[in-house]
Amino acid sequence: MSKSQYITGLRAVEQLLTGDAVEIRRIYAEYQTANPRVEAIIQTARKDGIEILAANRARLTQIGGEPRHQGVIAEVRRSTVLDEAGLRTLVEDSLVSESQEPLVLLALDGVQDPHNLGACLRTADAAGVSAVIVPRHGAAGLGPTVSKVAAGAAEQLPFAAVPSLGKVLRWLGDYGIRIVGTSDRAEIDVFQADLTGPLLLVMGSEHKGLSKGITNRCDTLISLPMHGVVSSLNVSVATGVCLYEIVRQRSL
Amino acid sequence: MSKSQYITGLRAVEQLLTGDAVEIRRIYAEYQTANPRVEAIIQTARKDGIEILAANRARLTQIGGEPRHQGVIAEVRRSTVLDEAGLRTLVEDSLVSESQEPLVLLALDGVQDPHNLGACLRTADAAGVSAVIVPRHGAAGLGPTVSKVAAGAAEQLPFAAVPSLGKVLRWLGDYGIRIVGTSDRAEIDVFQADLTGPLLLVMGSEHKGLSKGITNRCDTLISLPMHGVVSSLNVSVATGVCLYEIVRQRSL
Repeated sequence: MSKSQYITGLRAVEQLLTGDAVEIRRIYAEYQTANPRVEAIIQTARKDGIEILAANRARLTQIGGEPRHQGVIAEVRRSTVLDEAGLRTLVEDSLVSESQEPLVLLALDGVQDPHNLGACLRTADAAGVSAVIVPRHGAAGLGPTVSKVAAGAAEQLPFAAVPSLGKVLRWLGDYGIRIVGTSDRAEIDVFQADLTGPLLLVMGSEHKGLSKGITNRCDTLISLPMHGVVSSLNVSVATGVCLYEIVRQRSL
Repeated sequence: MSKSQYITGLRAVEQLLTGDAVEIRRIYAEYQTANPRVEAIIQTARKDGIEILAANRARLTQIGGEPRHQGVIAEVRRSTVLDEAGLRTLVEDSLVSESQEPLVLLALDGVQDPHNLGACLRTADAAGVSAVIVPRHGAAGLGPTVSKVAAGAAEQLPFAAVPSLGKVLRWLGDYGIRIVGTSDRAEIDVFQADLTGPLLLVMGSEHKGLSKGITNRCDTLISLPMHGVVSSLNVSVATGVCLYEIVRQRSL
């Protein structure tokens, strides 16, 4: 769950330092090297507040498991962050695997609050979701608040922040994955829908619900019965109710 | 019982204005704001003949007791807080009424976080719960954060803070109301339990779950299926899943 992964080599570590998708736990670097790129890595890492541990070649070979480390190794939290290609691979692997339960994916169409994202990840993990997909822009991404609220799920559950959620929904549809969205104008409620088989559940944002573009891509729209004065549920609660109805239907 | 209560935030005030369950005494709103939602609230309130008082941010913060008022506060008459006798009357009325659905009550055994309490109230209202019961001591009570998160439910849903939750569960049992508690050591899960008929669902606190005394008072213990690495759900999400399974079973 919190396993480390070791990234070796100058180019790989330089790239890690320029991105922010992966949390670098510490950097092991050869000291008194003449290589200015190692020096530059150390300077950048120091500025970013990353712990730097000095190590000689033999120690670096031992940590990295191979001698071609070029004098630098980054220890990162094993990444569950997927790009769109990684998401596609996950989906393909799941569809060819006969032993697994039918795929369940969760997409969040612009959830803003990191607490809500964290609670959704926690619930998605508990309900056996295979990956959570969010738009890269205009939505909460992973961070310390999300990790804390997710209670361990953020480090475990594959997570993809994609340039276009609509595009991903389109190619998922091509794989035969049903797109199920929530809408207060749906004609059936969550309990009336058939939620077996491979599917993606897409939930709207806190204030706007599902965007029109995403709503149009849904094969099925479902609502939650509302018996009181409030017009909607908190998005993480609504996600929980829908995901657990999926769990229930699959356990029959 | 007829004291004023202040409801802060755009969503909560909008919700109040669409219902008629609660009497709005007056609305305090920031004037010369650029926010069209505040303007819309003022227009609606004016049409409804509600007094509107202009107030700047500092004054709104003073009235609401917190700075996150989003430029609008409604002053309402609070009338849903019950004492134990009031709760007993509500239960007796419900049991003799033939037109109503079987009673559903929600008890929270020591929920600490006002956000969680607010989300539970919002969900309870949506699921048609008749009253929410909490212990008076060692648990979150009503307040501005709860009201805001509950999105209008806190002003609508009967709420009883009682000296002893165990004692209330005992006399509810005497009325033939089944006590259903959640426990990760339960032998059946929420989907295997019969949740029709008059019942009280009792949920544990964020960290300790149900106390031993309350667990012993339960007629039925249920768990939620957990398929991932996390060991539990957020209490408001778990409450939502259980309450909506009750809704589902009653709609069959």
